[in-house]
Amino acid sequence: MTQPLVNHAVVLAERPRGLPNSATWRLEERPIPAVRAGQVLIAVRECSLDPAMRGWLDDRPSYLPPVGIGEVMRAMVVGEVIESQVDGLTIGTWVLGALGVQEYAVARPSGLTIVDPQLGTPTEYLGILGTTGLTAYFGLFEHGRPRAGDTVVVSAAAGGVGSVVGQLARISGTRVVGIAGGSQKCAYLMDELGFDAAIDYRSGDVRRALRKACPAGIDVYFDNVGGEILDDALANLAMGARVVVCGAISQYNVDPDGADPAQRTVSGPGNYLSLLVRRGTMSGFLVFDYADQYATARQRLSGWVKSGAIVARQTVVSGGVQDFPETLLALFSGENVGKLTLRLESG
Amino acid sequence: MTQPLVNHAVVLAERPRGLPNSATWRLEERPIPAVRAGQVLIAVRECSLDPAMRGWLDDRPSYLPPVGIGEVMRAMVVGEVIESQVDGLTIGTWVLGALGVQEYAVARPSGLTIVDPQLGTPTEYLGILGTTGLTAYFGLFEHGRPRAGDTVVVSAAAGGVGSVVGQLARISGTRVVGIAGGSQKCAYLMDELGFDAAIDYRSGDVRRALRKACPAGIDVYFDNVGGEILDDALANLAMGARVVVCGAISQYNVDPDGADPAQRTVSGPGNYLSLLVRRGTMSGFLVFDYADQYATARQRLSGWVKSGAIVARQTVVSGGVQDFPETLLALFSGENVGKLTLRLESG
Repeated sequence: MTQPLVNHAVVLAERPRGLPNSATWRLEERPIPAVRAGQVLIAVRECSLDPAMRGWLDDRPSYLPPVGIGEVMRAMVVGEVIESQVDGLTIGTWVLGALGVQEYAVARPSGLTIVDPQLGTPTEYLGILGTTGLTAYFGLFEHGRPRAGDTVVVSAAAGGVGSVVGQLARISGTRVVGIAGGSQKCAYLMDELGFDAAIDYRSGDVRRALRKACPAGIDVYFDNVGGEILDDALANLAMGARVVVCGAISQYNVDPDGADPAQRTVSGPGNYLSLLVRRGTMSGFLVFDYADQYATARQRLSGWVKSGAIVARQTVVSGGVQDFPETLLALFSGENVGKLTLRLESG
Repeated sequence: MTQPLVNHAVVLAERPRGLPNSATWRLEERPIPAVRAGQVLIAVRECSLDPAMRGWLDDRPSYLPPVGIGEVMRAMVVGEVIESQVDGLTIGTWVLGALGVQEYAVARPSGLTIVDPQLGTPTEYLGILGTTGLTAYFGLFEHGRPRAGDTVVVSAAAGGVGSVVGQLARISGTRVVGIAGGSQKCAYLMDELGFDAAIDYRSGDVRRALRKACPAGIDVYFDNVGGEILDDALANLAMGARVVVCGAISQYNVDPDGADPAQRTVSGPGNYLSLLVRRGTMSGFLVFDYADQYATARQRLSGWVKSGAIVARQTVVSGGVQDFPETLLALFSGENVGKLTLRLESG
């Protein structure tokens, strides 16, 4: 195969305050480095878009170093090996890796996961079988620890992680309540994903709605949003409740210079003392810590998708790397349903 | 013994907003009910004063029902049985119980703990051998789970609970850092209680001081204060840290009508997302849940006091029940060191 001459990549041009905008990113043409012994060249076919990406843009210590100015934007992608200097990793193999928002990447095999078509498609390796599904699986099972009969509440319930959490909770024998924005998403949770109740946070008092939907209190609250909804859940905990801190999308675009004082700093949960009253636990986790159990989790998740026990909806946007900035914003506007990816037609 | 004719009690006159004041309480003379079969009459000798008392005054659901308007203020007390209609519970026996701020109480034995003079004095049964010491013991050991080599940080470290937490952490082989107000308290932590470091929150940036005192991060943070200091600790967590929510004295006197907007609602920890980054856990607990293990804990705590491994300082104010309102305020002004009790001279 003839090596392509040029790579297009999305690089970080400047750190955003609040939501990323046109000044945040720069599209660059870059030469493709030669493939050395022990490396492969991968044509990127599809990029994952994740709320966590926003956090990677801030220059502060976190679980991963921030993306540097001028560096290719970090992203999980799937792609096809088009040149190989690695024994046993042949041209045409599909792989998953953190290769960034670009058309081509040179990589060593250590950071790559080979896509097993018996388990799922490459697109599914970015969703239910990727960080998204694994985050739901380990967050719920290791930290939420649902028991049959429990009431499990999940926020951003129609999103990539939330929709899997709710369904895993359902097949664990719990009563599942989802919080999402808009009647359409709520109908989706009830009709297609089999939730027991859905709360539209745009149409009224979430705290009261939770009290009604969870008469015995919340045993497990899986939080993807933070802010007021986290406080509403804390106000409704059952004894011994587990609060799983997975994300806080309502707080990711805090802008220290913004017009609204309430949006200038991260808002902490004022109701955290109900952890004391209800003998509750709030714990954070990162999926990477469970890497040694990914294989088992992928097998199970794949089985549930095949049996129909889990519906793993993905929203696939077709385009080029230049469409990444706009596509990312769909995660923060609340319009997206399911796992969001960008398929590179040019790739 | 002749039955006393009258009982003096402190009753709740009106619910405070912010700090309790003179309108909060009313001193009442009450007749003493006849002692029926299965009951004892107790002359109260000493009352415990606890930060948690503030929470009992608010009319909202919590781990105990609020003290009702016109009811005797709830308090743990020690006293002497002066009349008995219970076989085996003889006159002259000292007991511990939640009998309230009053001079005499009629009670059934089920809610009473007999003071074992082999273990400690009645005063110690209100402190190191009472709710205070037991809260430190179960909070630290069950929720903090210290391992030798860990760094343990405790706030309100010179107070009743905090001073025991720090010493239990020290004898567990950890590095102990206390946060307290004023250089005198800090000197006390270092010189008398054997802390490894002490941070005076009144003299500078606690976050920076914690970073310096805990170069490898905080493994266990035992929080008695909430507010900014909780956020400062969250900003310095080690991987897998345990944050124990025992209290939040900085937030107990929130006044919805107060002059300072920042003090009108409970301030939640804006840095709670470091639980995610550091894979931490924040858990609340109540000592009552461990009642079946109190006997073992009392034995151990008593042993440590006798061996000198734990210094259990108590501040005993002498007076009458009428001195309760003013004595209580010492807990919130930050002037108190060690466990605070009110000894009834009239009793």
